[in-house]
Amino acid sequence: MERTLVKDTLVVTQDDRRRVVRGDVLVEGDTIAGVGPDLGPADRVIDGRRRVVMPGMVNAHGHIAMHAMRGVADDMPLEAFLERTFAVDARRTSQDIEAGARLGALELLKTGSTACVDLYYDQDAVARGLASIGVRGWLGWAVLDEKFTTQKGAPLANCEAWAGRARDIPRVTPMVAPQGVYVCGEETYHGARELAERLGVPLHTHLSETRPEVYNHKAATGARPVEWLAKIGFLCPRLSAAHLVWVTMAELDLLSKAGVCAVHCPTSNMKLASGGVAPVPEMLERGMHVGLGTDGASSNNSVDMFGEMKQAALLHKSARWDARLVTAQQALDMATRGGAAAVGALDRLGSVEVGKQADLVLIDRGKPSVAPLREDNLVSALVYGGGTDIVDTVLVAGEVVLEGGRPTRADAGEVVRGAEEAAAALMERAKEAGGGA
Amino acid sequence: MERTLVKDTLVVTQDDRRRVVRGDVLVEGDTIAGVGPDLGPADRVIDGRRRVVMPGMVNAHGHIAMHAMRGVADDMPLEAFLERTFAVDARRTSQDIEAGARLGALELLKTGSTACVDLYYDQDAVARGLASIGVRGWLGWAVLDEKFTTQKGAPLANCEAWAGRARDIPRVTPMVAPQGVYVCGEETYHGARELAERLGVPLHTHLSETRPEVYNHKAATGARPVEWLAKIGFLCPRLSAAHLVWVTMAELDLLSKAGVCAVHCPTSNMKLASGGVAPVPEMLERGMHVGLGTDGASSNNSVDMFGEMKQAALLHKSARWDARLVTAQQALDMATRGGAAAVGALDRLGSVEVGKQADLVLIDRGKPSVAPLREDNLVSALVYGGGTDIVDTVLVAGEVVLEGGRPTRADAGEVVRGAEEAAAALMERAKEAGGGA
Repeated sequence: MERTLVKDTLVVTQDDRRRVVRGDVLVEGDTIAGVGPDLGPADRVIDGRRRVVMPGMVNAHGHIAMHAMRGVADDMPLEAFLERTFAVDARRTSQDIEAGARLGALELLKTGSTACVDLYYDQDAVARGLASIGVRGWLGWAVLDEKFTTQKGAPLANCEAWAGRARDIPRVTPMVAPQGVYVCGEETYHGARELAERLGVPLHTHLSETRPEVYNHKAATGARPVEWLAKIGFLCPRLSAAHLVWVTMAELDLLSKAGVCAVHCPTSNMKLASGGVAPVPEMLERGMHVGLGTDGASSNNSVDMFGEMKQAALLHKSARWDARLVTAQQALDMATRGGAAAVGALDRLGSVEVGKQADLVLIDRGKPSVAPLREDNLVSALVYGGGTDIVDTVLVAGEVVLEGGRPTRADAGEVVRGAEEAAAALMERAKEAGGGA
Repeated sequence: MERTLVKDTLVVTQDDRRRVVRGDVLVEGDTIAGVGPDLGPADRVIDGRRRVVMPGMVNAHGHIAMHAMRGVADDMPLEAFLERTFAVDARRTSQDIEAGARLGALELLKTGSTACVDLYYDQDAVARGLASIGVRGWLGWAVLDEKFTTQKGAPLANCEAWAGRARDIPRVTPMVAPQGVYVCGEETYHGARELAERLGVPLHTHLSETRPEVYNHKAATGARPVEWLAKIGFLCPRLSAAHLVWVTMAELDLLSKAGVCAVHCPTSNMKLASGGVAPVPEMLERGMHVGLGTDGASSNNSVDMFGEMKQAALLHKSARWDARLVTAQQALDMATRGGAAAVGALDRLGSVEVGKQADLVLIDRGKPSVAPLREDNLVSALVYGGGTDIVDTVLVAGEVVLEGGRPTRADAGEVVRGAEEAAAALMERAKEAGGGA
């Protein structure tokens, strides 16, 4: 088995004690085989002296296929945003989706994410995009009531068929992803949970993102979305729920008791003016697992998790007038351990520890945005300083997929140009269809 | 005179009509000599086909010398933050300050700022730092009541002496910078204004940043800070005021009528939990010039103006539940024209127009974070997508100071290592002095 050694480095382990270790990281095959002084020998040695090793981040909520649609709908209310993005999205082909996903995967890798959670239809094309770059994906096929879907065939059946195909795709785990209470009735949620249990895969959903979602649902059913999902028996440890902006403390108790993971998406919530701020301090107080997600490229418009960590640390300080809320360490926890927990993979991902998957991000400490770097300001430098140019080398499952800032499986220029061409053609089609106004 | 041509490119002019122009940009000496199709010939041609040209940004409030202190005080209330940073700052030498400023200037350049407004003491050292990289500086010597200062000699006299020395430093303009109402009495403000008028230089100050500042001042004087400065006759078009978080609409009217420029620092306000959000939409409604600033590396902790534009666009949407507030275009205006106006230099900086200084930023459109780039999403891509790796080439006063992401006047690695060494020695001294707790 090939042995790779990162020699003489500083490791932000993100282990239970959040230790920063000076020494080496040894990788055997796809697994971390050692963290500490004087490991080796190895087939391949990476000089770690001017680098810092951290766990690959898990971007726990997004829609990377939408990268080809970046910037089509900004600075507008949610209704206009949805109308505009749906109009463009409706004109997409599988090739567009793959080209967008390739670009999204490249941006993920270059900004330190080694895995993403994705909610979309046509996850086959998304999976091809991810594979072309080497990023892991938890790919949830969108499930919704048949009366609302534009999918060919029944979404639940499509999802099950996708899960069957996904079994053979390396680094991909299928998920069942009911879209949200505004398009999913009780039967759909029951079907989604039953399918996920049967297949042994995670569930992922949008939940309590906006005021209208919550109050419309309450008007229709008498219960707020989280209360309602608790009542119909959908909440379970298999579920990660994105957004959770408009939740009461009683609802947080329900989520916490059921073992649901929250996924915080601060930038998306700010940009779409979802109103209010997700009660992340209260989630953390309850000991809930909280992941961090960028959401899609039309509502952020980035998948940079360094930026998202900073936003998570800033937003709550600002909203509550308390600079102590959501520390740099807590933000880093969300981006690593929290995301791993959100997909039920904390035993394999989320920290640099022996036995875990070798998903490693090597930071170039010579970049101005993280300098001057010391052991005592290391986490702060990553969270508050870290720009999109600091990621030097990335390993996924022990494979070097980024080296010197360049992807090893693809040509970055070609990926960008492919997305540009797909986007240009898509915008033309959308304009012809009247969606380009 | 040397002629440089950026050929076949896309120019975000930021002119009065905010035009995006396809064509060339011609530079003669330090000045823009043409923007449009088929210019040339030239001594030096830069291929613009995979690039976008935008005006160099003006980072309109900061303390770049504090770069060597990045990450010394995070996630703590303002009082603890100030105590900690002052304790470390008190142990600094001129060499530390210069090393910090060099690092700050390098980060500015790499993130698209060609000029900065700075408030500090020992601006001679800051100026040396800037000159070593090639960035312009409006360098304000901090002025405060003698009973509060740690400066040797009287601050106003020090400021005047600095202004005398600064006359001979290329790309540097001195400013008079009364620190804030908590350390400046009426006499100091009068002296500052008189000195600025006599020297013909701008005034820069911190103003209404925090609740305690406002309410303590009101308790002491009977007036809120802006009201009080209006009463003593300090407000004038020469003044730019950073923060302005805690201001009433009546105070905005006073500022607007007096022609004062506001400088918005959203990330710093969020990180220090200044409480509340600066009323930027109301500033813009009044037609005030609004610049954008990152503040110092201990309260942000970055000088990346792409990140700051995004934050400016996001924060108001989130705080007011209105996604239409502060558009990408308005954020870009703040970072370019607004900053130029804040230092009284809109006739020379802030847009790509014939006759203005050739302070140009060339974006690499092949970077994933801005792709897919089209004319219709160009401003959105820069503001919402733009990472810290997109700046390829920068000209200041017609001189290429960054090329392929590398500074031409200095070795980036040496700049970073110099700051690391200075920071390590400083932290040791601070620890010995009991400030490192």
